[in-house]
Amino acid sequence: MTAEQIIIKKRDGLELKESEIQFVINGLLQGDVTEYQMSALLMAIYFQGMTFDEIYLMTKTMVESGERVDLSHLDKFPVDKHSTGGVGDKVSLILAPLMAAAGLAIPMMSGRGLGHSGGTLDKLEAIPGFRINLPLSEYVSLLEKIGVAMIGQNENIAPADRLLYALRDSTGTVPSIPLVVCSIMSKKIAEGAKGLVLDVKVGKGAFFHSLPKALELTNKLIAIGGKFDLKTTALVTAMDQPLGNAVGNWLETREAINTLKGNGPDDLVKVTIALGAEMLCLAKKTKDISEAEKTLNELLLSGKAYDKFLEMVKEQNGDVSVTENPNTYPESKYNIRIVSKSDGYIHAIDSLKIGLLAMELGAGRIKMTDEIDYRAGFVLNKKEGDAVGIGELLVEAAFSKEMSESYIENKVLDAFQIKDQKPNEQKLILKYVNEKGAFEWQGNS
Amino acid sequence: MTAEQIIIKKRDGLELKESEIQFVINGLLQGDVTEYQMSALLMAIYFQGMTFDEIYLMTKTMVESGERVDLSHLDKFPVDKHSTGGVGDKVSLILAPLMAAAGLAIPMMSGRGLGHSGGTLDKLEAIPGFRINLPLSEYVSLLEKIGVAMIGQNENIAPADRLLYALRDSTGTVPSIPLVVCSIMSKKIAEGAKGLVLDVKVGKGAFFHSLPKALELTNKLIAIGGKFDLKTTALVTAMDQPLGNAVGNWLETREAINTLKGNGPDDLVKVTIALGAEMLCLAKKTKDISEAEKTLNELLLSGKAYDKFLEMVKEQNGDVSVTENPNTYPESKYNIRIVSKSDGYIHAIDSLKIGLLAMELGAGRIKMTDEIDYRAGFVLNKKEGDAVGIGELLVEAAFSKEMSESYIENKVLDAFQIKDQKPNEQKLILKYVNEKGAFEWQGNS
Repeated sequence: MTAEQIIIKKRDGLELKESEIQFVINGLLQGDVTEYQMSALLMAIYFQGMTFDEIYLMTKTMVESGERVDLSHLDKFPVDKHSTGGVGDKVSLILAPLMAAAGLAIPMMSGRGLGHSGGTLDKLEAIPGFRINLPLSEYVSLLEKIGVAMIGQNENIAPADRLLYALRDSTGTVPSIPLVVCSIMSKKIAEGAKGLVLDVKVGKGAFFHSLPKALELTNKLIAIGGKFDLKTTALVTAMDQPLGNAVGNWLETREAINTLKGNGPDDLVKVTIALGAEMLCLAKKTKDISEAEKTLNELLLSGKAYDKFLEMVKEQNGDVSVTENPNTYPESKYNIRIVSKSDGYIHAIDSLKIGLLAMELGAGRIKMTDEIDYRAGFVLNKKEGDAVGIGELLVEAAFSKEMSESYIENKVLDAFQIKDQKPNEQKLILKYVNEKGAFEWQGNS
Repeated sequence: MTAEQIIIKKRDGLELKESEIQFVINGLLQGDVTEYQMSALLMAIYFQGMTFDEIYLMTKTMVESGERVDLSHLDKFPVDKHSTGGVGDKVSLILAPLMAAAGLAIPMMSGRGLGHSGGTLDKLEAIPGFRINLPLSEYVSLLEKIGVAMIGQNENIAPADRLLYALRDSTGTVPSIPLVVCSIMSKKIAEGAKGLVLDVKVGKGAFFHSLPKALELTNKLIAIGGKFDLKTTALVTAMDQPLGNAVGNWLETREAINTLKGNGPDDLVKVTIALGAEMLCLAKKTKDISEAEKTLNELLLSGKAYDKFLEMVKEQNGDVSVTENPNTYPESKYNIRIVSKSDGYIHAIDSLKIGLLAMELGAGRIKMTDEIDYRAGFVLNKKEGDAVGIGELLVEAAFSKEMSESYIENKVLDAFQIKDQKPNEQKLILKYVNEKGAFEWQGNS
């Protein structure tokens, strides 16, 4: 068996066997298979796809490339949430402590932002001192002690995924559904969760722009979860406009804190509660979604979710004086107000354009090694459906590098679509998906 | 511009611009573009192909990656021949001195064998002492002095091709027509030839198994030649059975010597004369193919072609005592005779099977770094169309490693198809192709 033969087999559309998948994945880790052979194979997979068996075997090989955390000794059911990524998506920061407050264990390994899409790790690191690189033993202890730990991808968890992702990221092979499935699920299976609720985003600022593609991914993720005793369900949610009002790392963390205190923007709260309600049902903690929603709303309003957040920040060495008094956070050098040039109703806020512009302001990365400015970003004062008058505030932009204000203003205004008529209300939660199929969401959102 | 953006563009089927092609090719040479990015791009090209403009620009960039030899000062017209590779194809060894004897300059840079396919360099190096790595200045001097030089790919000639070929060879991206065109033509353009006659092989032991694919490649090679002032024509020739009787490096060199002395096997002489006649016409040395054929036959029979071969071997430090007395060449440890088990006529000798078995005997390489045994190989005593009786000699096999004789015998017999009826005679030269189209060959063969 040679790597070249395996590449040719995939190139020609044939199904790879377990031994062949192991040969290339383990060979890459050991240096026997070269990076240039692996990237050629990844491109062949991009074009030829993978069968379900191949996806299963590749995920299995990636899980087995590192440690698999055992959380079976916890007296709480360990559930994770994974989002396919969007603009303004700070749900994890709220959901993890909220669900721990609700009595679940939340083993959460997150990633960094890239391009227009933000990442949970960057939002956590916007809190001075916050440690995301806990050793696995400390991660397990924290889950035992407070029921939640939010860390980065540990080097012992699915190390093959790190190598593969780095190659995909620079060879145009990120948007391959089979490879996305292997990457997400290998990490989730290895981190020790027993349940997983997916937030699959669809829309302008998401990986998928249409529902059918998103459902194709969702079904595969759920089916692979089932093969590894990781009970997986999903909500497919809209990502046309940014989620919540804040876009940019610290600005989003601050919004997450406000939401944990019961003062969150409507769409952000709805998505968070929906995902959390599904997590509670998956863990069989409540009898139905509506009871779960009630429980979670109470935990936000009572301050218990926020208390759990503070506990987690302290345990992970974050500076709670900043989270307790967000106004003490260092200000951006420039803060500009962008106001509407027309009267009407907001029909669309293009999240891709907003995400890319936030990146230009310093909030995001073009490549993984770029530095980011935690303070930079936007706060939206209007969302889709809102009425707006000439001169009324649309967006505040915060940044510290030297940039043309009129450039930023024009780009922001270009992202807004304002029309005379009030638009129809858009659905936020498009589908609920489990192993049996896709259904309308039964929750309150 | 980033390598990743260029890969994505090609992945999505868009046409690359000259600046983008230069970016990746020159970037690879300078180390700014990684091998794993290039191999992903090569696989994307395998799937998406290249437009004619892209092939032209890529060839141009590869030529410009190194030196371009100027042979315009020669008083002889410099013409080269290129074969797409086959089994028993020792035509270059005969043709190069033959055409130099006919008054052309033959600047020939060849390659090594890989897999079932032989390479001219290995056959030359079967002659003790023969130097294939002359510096470009010595190569030009030799062309001035004796009108022929046969060398390996010089490191200053299209260095980008060497890097690309090494990647393609281990990533399953060799069989991509656009990449084959860029690879062949960049070297031929840079080596200084003004004319090029292609021998495009079709059949079981060739790169292409059917005429349409072979013509697709041929047309592109000819069109690219035209863009660089390299007048290119082609013969499409059959490669179902091995060419000539010998397969294996020294055995083929010995057969080439016999052919240069006027004692060559019929099919080998026909293909050599046909290619040579086309070279003479391309150089406008003779008025038509039939006059050219006459000239070349005379050069073989008079010994002048062989004299030129001896002159070349001497100039390139080869041991002429061996070429003068082939029987003094060291013998293989084992020589076995494989005889027919049935009466009838030979309908087919599978050149792929023979080529692969010769490789197993030690005559070829699985990968480029493998050592080869120059003495190993086969001599066929029967060819397609010949009558054969039970117990009559089909093949002699020479080898020096320990192998099962019955294994070799069974494999050889499996390559032969013997039937009762005499088969129809097969055409040897299937098409003549120039920039105007594909035609029947007008020569004597």
